[in-house]
Amino acid sequence: MDSIENLITTLGTNARIAAKSLRGATTQKKNSALKNIAEQIHQNRKVILKANQQDVAQAKDNQLDDALIDRLILDDTRIDGIIESLNQIAALADPIGEITDLKFRPSGIQVGKMRVPLGVMGIIYESRPNVTIDAAALCLKSGNGVILRGGSEAIHSNLALYACVKDGLIDDGLNEYCVQLIDTTDRAAVNALVQASEYIDAIIPRGGKGLVEAISQNATVPVIKHLHGVCHTYIDKDADADKAIKIAFNAKTRRYGVCNAMETLLVHASAAGKVLPELIAEYALKGVELRGCEQTRQFSKQIIAATAEDWDTEYLDAILSIRIVNSMSDAIDHIEQHGSGHTESIVTENYTSGRRFITEVDSASVMINASTGFADGFEYGFGAEIGISTDKFHVRGPVGLEGLTSQKYIVLGDGHIRQ
Amino acid sequence: MDSIENLITTLGTNARIAAKSLRGATTQKKNSALKNIAEQIHQNRKVILKANQQDVAQAKDNQLDDALIDRLILDDTRIDGIIESLNQIAALADPIGEITDLKFRPSGIQVGKMRVPLGVMGIIYESRPNVTIDAAALCLKSGNGVILRGGSEAIHSNLALYACVKDGLIDDGLNEYCVQLIDTTDRAAVNALVQASEYIDAIIPRGGKGLVEAISQNATVPVIKHLHGVCHTYIDKDADADKAIKIAFNAKTRRYGVCNAMETLLVHASAAGKVLPELIAEYALKGVELRGCEQTRQFSKQIIAATAEDWDTEYLDAILSIRIVNSMSDAIDHIEQHGSGHTESIVTENYTSGRRFITEVDSASVMINASTGFADGFEYGFGAEIGISTDKFHVRGPVGLEGLTSQKYIVLGDGHIRQ
Repeated sequence: MDSIENLITTLGTNARIAAKSLRGATTQKKNSALKNIAEQIHQNRKVILKANQQDVAQAKDNQLDDALIDRLILDDTRIDGIIESLNQIAALADPIGEITDLKFRPSGIQVGKMRVPLGVMGIIYESRPNVTIDAAALCLKSGNGVILRGGSEAIHSNLALYACVKDGLIDDGLNEYCVQLIDTTDRAAVNALVQASEYIDAIIPRGGKGLVEAISQNATVPVIKHLHGVCHTYIDKDADADKAIKIAFNAKTRRYGVCNAMETLLVHASAAGKVLPELIAEYALKGVELRGCEQTRQFSKQIIAATAEDWDTEYLDAILSIRIVNSMSDAIDHIEQHGSGHTESIVTENYTSGRRFITEVDSASVMINASTGFADGFEYGFGAEIGISTDKFHVRGPVGLEGLTSQKYIVLGDGHIRQ
Repeated sequence: MDSIENLITTLGTNARIAAKSLRGATTQKKNSALKNIAEQIHQNRKVILKANQQDVAQAKDNQLDDALIDRLILDDTRIDGIIESLNQIAALADPIGEITDLKFRPSGIQVGKMRVPLGVMGIIYESRPNVTIDAAALCLKSGNGVILRGGSEAIHSNLALYACVKDGLIDDGLNEYCVQLIDTTDRAAVNALVQASEYIDAIIPRGGKGLVEAISQNATVPVIKHLHGVCHTYIDKDADADKAIKIAFNAKTRRYGVCNAMETLLVHASAAGKVLPELIAEYALKGVELRGCEQTRQFSKQIIAATAEDWDTEYLDAILSIRIVNSMSDAIDHIEQHGSGHTESIVTENYTSGRRFITEVDSASVMINASTGFADGFEYGFGAEIGISTDKFHVRGPVGLEGLTSQKYIVLGDGHIRQ
């Protein structure tokens, strides 16, 4: 344990110094570092793939499950994706230094806000090695130092990728400690990291609900949390049936394993007859298992009876629960009680219903006549995403570069003193 | 301890329900509640003053210090101030529901942000009874439920003021639990409150560094911290001497006991001769004790030698430390090492120096040619202030209504599905 504390102290001290130097780095310098890293990864494909094969072989020996192994695997296409992502982040506008709302006050001073890095981030993730580069790139671009801690099953891949980051930073004359990777797989390092408030300004866990909950419980450093997505679509009594069917089908079936997929469909009793028969048929054709309330089950014998647990479940699978409600208030109450505050959408042509829904539903994203699948940093125009926050504090919803920043006030005067 | 847990559970459950009802309250309803509370306070002056006299008598019996007793005392003028503050908060624009940045995306959806309350706030403060009303009013206006916990020495005053809040809320048909006051002076209640993450979204401690540190250490709920203000003025080599003298004098002497008062003056060696003789004379006339580095002391025999501790001290008093530096880099390094990240100001006519200072100095407020005394929510145009955050997470610098809010994304479509 003592050596872990020493490790975190060393990493933390280096990160603070590096972050200070990065705070003043020009946009050009940060972008050229990102491009250097991309070039290093391109030139070291063979080394990276070999390291990855070591991880994959070990994962198979350890009989880890197929889904995890699939996330772990790198190939040329995935490496191309990583390189492409670096170039895209280099092409994004630099959020740092942006001055907004600069206005004269009655006293004669001008007051505005300047966007600045948060400082040093700690990012803890699971088996996908591409997160090593994504997280490094987003922190670098937003002027933050970062300490990375990947899954133990990806350690060789992560070390190989991290070597490219380090070389890319050095080539550019940036402090090599701007990005650091914890190279021990000792779990104690995670606990030490999330309590190192002297060195770390915020922790972002990227992984399943279990990881996020474990980290939040132990952390004394602020955590940007993404717990889970139990997303709802509510088909209002005044919904356009065609739009409702299209949206409800897309929100469930576009991709099953993503947090913005709809898990529960709420249908107003007087819209059920117009939309459910066709939707049930379409879901059946697609192989989606349906679990419904008593009223819903009257539309098809194949619908299984939903249990109390179903309404709270993030299936991340080809399963959907359906509930018929008698009013929009019932729908909003259901969301309040069972939702996770991630994303909810109403389908309606009624102005007042739409306005009420987006005002009253307290989720990170609320939508009218659109698929919950749109809740995503790229779709929102951030150009990149480091996660989706289900918190309200600091940053909410998809987290892009701006979520990794803070703002300071700037005051411009000409010898002004305060009375 | 068991009864304290029950108390917090009851308060928390009530606060959650009240906060939900408040989320959708109209601006008019919130403003009329604020005006009702003002009216209740006006009508109950005698009751409030009597309760306050009880607190003051007890404080004297307990031999509490004079400064504390001064903060505790209410009189007609101070009650007028409380009423005026309620009317001012009622007159402020409502931040809730504001939709910004609503833009079309290539997919055809429109994405924007809507400002929403954080939820339930916990506010912990010391002896000033007016904070009971200020905090209640700011939370009410920003649509947040709030649980208040004042200093035990002000309990009778706070209960009398709180009765006015409750009646004001009821008169308006708002949920009376929108604002709740912890009526026990048991310290265990503070610990239970700052760990009640199920019910509380953020804690704001309003008080000295000791209170804030104690709360931060125990809290599992996010804390909006204001630790202390070791503020600097740096007189650059290219400073205009008149502006420098005016600003440095004002920043120290405007008020001594406030967090935005300058505590250390940094002077470039080549400007020292132009500004220090006059400044030293002015400070002496005003009775400010000066503590200086070796070089500074050559300007006057009356300057005491500063110790290492002086550079880190928030005097909150008629004391100033002065250091002569050889470059702006030295000044920035001094601020980085000894400052508290609150407010720093440069005095210079040099464009490049000013630009560099506001970019490189990592404080909540950075200024050019203005007194640090301007670091204040009212001066920045927020119309009200609940504190000054020296954190970078969530909110930084003076905290007005906006600091008590979060934003959610709204997405408007017309049957849009994601590819």
